[in-house]
Amino acid sequence: MKTKNAAGRMVETTICGIKFKPFSGARKYKYTSKVTSLANALKKCGLKDGMTLSFHHQLRNGDFVVNKTLEAVKELGLKHIRLAQTALFNVHTPVIDFIEEGVVDRIEGSINGPVGDYVSKNPLNSPVVLRSHGGRWAAVKTGELHPDIAVIAASAADERGNATGIIGENAFGPISYSQVDALYADHVIVVTDNVVDYPCPYQEIQERYVDYVAHVDCIGDPKKIMFGTTKITEDPMKLKIAHDCVDLMDAAGFIKNGMVFQSGAGGISLATMKYLGERLMEKNVIANCATGGLTKLIIDIYKAGHVKHLYYSQVFDDYSVKFVQEELGLPADIGHYADPTSKGRTIDGLDTVVLGATEVDTDFNVNVNTHSDGRLLHGIGGHQDTAAAAKLTIITCPVYRKTNPIVREKVTTLTTPGDVVDAIVTNEGIAINPRRKDLIEKVKDKLDNLVSIEDLKNRAYEATGGPAEINLGDEIIGVTKWFDGSLLDVIYRVRD
Amino acid sequence: MKTKNAAGRMVETTICGIKFKPFSGARKYKYTSKVTSLANALKKCGLKDGMTLSFHHQLRNGDFVVNKTLEAVKELGLKHIRLAQTALFNVHTPVIDFIEEGVVDRIEGSINGPVGDYVSKNPLNSPVVLRSHGGRWAAVKTGELHPDIAVIAASAADERGNATGIIGENAFGPISYSQVDALYADHVIVVTDNVVDYPCPYQEIQERYVDYVAHVDCIGDPKKIMFGTTKITEDPMKLKIAHDCVDLMDAAGFIKNGMVFQSGAGGISLATMKYLGERLMEKNVIANCATGGLTKLIIDIYKAGHVKHLYYSQVFDDYSVKFVQEELGLPADIGHYADPTSKGRTIDGLDTVVLGATEVDTDFNVNVNTHSDGRLLHGIGGHQDTAAAAKLTIITCPVYRKTNPIVREKVTTLTTPGDVVDAIVTNEGIAINPRRKDLIEKVKDKLDNLVSIEDLKNRAYEATGGPAEINLGDEIIGVTKWFDGSLLDVIYRVRD
Repeated sequence: MKTKNAAGRMVETTICGIKFKPFSGARKYKYTSKVTSLANALKKCGLKDGMTLSFHHQLRNGDFVVNKTLEAVKELGLKHIRLAQTALFNVHTPVIDFIEEGVVDRIEGSINGPVGDYVSKNPLNSPVVLRSHGGRWAAVKTGELHPDIAVIAASAADERGNATGIIGENAFGPISYSQVDALYADHVIVVTDNVVDYPCPYQEIQERYVDYVAHVDCIGDPKKIMFGTTKITEDPMKLKIAHDCVDLMDAAGFIKNGMVFQSGAGGISLATMKYLGERLMEKNVIANCATGGLTKLIIDIYKAGHVKHLYYSQVFDDYSVKFVQEELGLPADIGHYADPTSKGRTIDGLDTVVLGATEVDTDFNVNVNTHSDGRLLHGIGGHQDTAAAAKLTIITCPVYRKTNPIVREKVTTLTTPGDVVDAIVTNEGIAINPRRKDLIEKVKDKLDNLVSIEDLKNRAYEATGGPAEINLGDEIIGVTKWFDGSLLDVIYRVRD
Repeated sequence: MKTKNAAGRMVETTICGIKFKPFSGARKYKYTSKVTSLANALKKCGLKDGMTLSFHHQLRNGDFVVNKTLEAVKELGLKHIRLAQTALFNVHTPVIDFIEEGVVDRIEGSINGPVGDYVSKNPLNSPVVLRSHGGRWAAVKTGELHPDIAVIAASAADERGNATGIIGENAFGPISYSQVDALYADHVIVVTDNVVDYPCPYQEIQERYVDYVAHVDCIGDPKKIMFGTTKITEDPMKLKIAHDCVDLMDAAGFIKNGMVFQSGAGGISLATMKYLGERLMEKNVIANCATGGLTKLIIDIYKAGHVKHLYYSQVFDDYSVKFVQEELGLPADIGHYADPTSKGRTIDGLDTVVLGATEVDTDFNVNVNTHSDGRLLHGIGGHQDTAAAAKLTIITCPVYRKTNPIVREKVTTLTTPGDVVDAIVTNEGIAINPRRKDLIEKVKDKLDNLVSIEDLKNRAYEATGGPAEINLGDEIIGVTKWFDGSLLDVIYRVRD
């Protein structure tokens, strides 16, 4: 059928069986500044009772944005918000008040510290859902976790919404957790204390996804954004464990040209980086990539020419923030790093990773989420993602802490299944997963501190008298998911 | 209901009304090299009769990838392919053979030259769909145009699929058209002649989207990838038009600090850049951004300190390719640049753009697609996108060419509606769209060469005797769409 469109042209509405909509008019496009207040941004994005607000945690324990946002939600008189942060820290203790006031009633995301402790004793309306970095990315991508509004902290942004974490007084490194939220949330608010001239010179988040730029006085406390992660432990036991990790990597044949290693920022992981750097130099080996988080230790290895590429998703210390301002390297957002639903991830080539544990069991299962008393005090982070990717996944822990056996019959909560754990390095020897016969074959003549996991458990039980009884209720306060979305474990209420 | 999952944990399958899938097992992830032959990659991606293959055109008239891919399709014995390239050039003349052999039977994408000429006379199974840069991005994003397999040429890629156009012998600048194809196509093949060590140091396309890396001997002819676009016209008429464009911008008050201008690469556009650069220097004005395509002319302005940011989506000459290898600036993919369905685009702040035309009419409508004889010989490019974005949209053309009136009663084909066109700058004066009373008010006392569009048409008709009759058939061989997906115009078959 012929019709005259708004430009006065006679056009068909069906051609070769394909339907067309006639042109209805052209207009000049305009833009206006997106800068407004946080409360106004939330209002304009249509925030309602029961909605889901997402956040990244890259301001860590220096973050003001989650608390400020919930304060604004409260002032707007809204309730029943589901928090979908990538992680909470001690600084987020006020979230407890918001829970008690009914402003927040559900949480999907990692929790470190006081809020976890509170929730362990005071169940929310539905269980806290704990996911790995990659698992959370995938959950937002697949719609399992749909943020109504993504609230994205930025240390600089322009008035149109191009935003970064690389520059500014509160710089924390490239924003790397929020791209998927920006893409899939119905609305996106960038929160910054630093509105810069257009165009913002770095743009991990681009204007095309952003509805509003909320200008606040301060997004965080720079002293706490980087919280002491560069300090290497002085504890000789931990140093010994770290050194043994490098010996194990070496015995297993991984310390060679082209090596790809994960660079973490926990106590023992950091010490391992120091020893690994020394070993690379001693053996004159040039690694290919370090993935994960940047610290001065890794950059030193890079500057010494012993690792070719810095492929990083987080930046942990001031030194590293300044470094990436001058030499960007290869920042990888969390999807690039660890999205299990993608066709390839930076961690897929990992040779080695060194990870922590609050408990391990004789099946090599690892718990990083709850303490042995059942309290939910930590998130998953990249634990599962890297454990399942690395050719050599090393878990480090002492055999026991005070009166608590760390190596035990059964972990209190399951975070990472033993099927992807290759070795446990402790202060009383190294236990290699018996499923890894190839690894045992490689290292058995080179290491004199191999022990069985049963031995380690027995020593732990002898020294401590075994696990204490714990006092749990029936209510499920949280769950741990494997990064494919399936249910690994449930976490029960802790009775006072 | 409680059940024991694959890790031996007792878990509920429904908690607080939310259903959970029990963990079914963990395994180590591995990757293998994605490098294979082009034919094998197509086969492994499940190419079938009737599928849609998408391509970018950043190798321009030096591209070997479209022809090589169709050759492989033919060898696989497959037919009825729909081509969804961003543009075809003279080098793609073999596509005519593939059409005649039934390998290709539909095209959605810009066509420059011989294939368009052929299609004008030999209708395909459905009309060629012409979209602007932004319109095509949106069509792929919304599913209106779904590529089964995206074939992405790269001048370097690693074995896992991280790919770039920035480095390598056939470097053409950042890949900027294919991100949306990588995201939405069912399968993605990177085609390169330059497999580099992992990780590829630039990654406009990341491994997470890539199924295979097809290693070919050569992706293109570097001499033709950059096809003379840096040569400024020596035609005094064109130089005068270019100069008048800058006078118009100046009279309209746009040449001032903070200005944002589009930098094109057509003959007159390029000359305009030269004069604009001179004017910026004379007036000691510092522009904020140049958007669009990079040429040595723009970089000269940047190096002289008269434009702060290079916000570019294409790179047009060797000089610029080398420049971005050293100083990346702000590459913007086409979605960032012009996606009309996004919340903000780099072109939204455009002050001025200078665009060409094969015809304009007395309603200020512009045709860039067909010649006056009806033959489809050009694509839309960013014409519509920038015309609708810029505060001052200038169309340049001579009043007539040989015996053909360029300014005329009615364009043969509508590309960009007059509603978003502000001025036509010709060799016989400047016609300002009467709808832009504000603009007329600003410039009328400053310019002595303002004329009405009717006047220009009359001069054209006097000199040429008016438009020649054209001999069109009834079949619709192509359509032009506005970037919102609606039907602007239909293009009829040209009878021999």
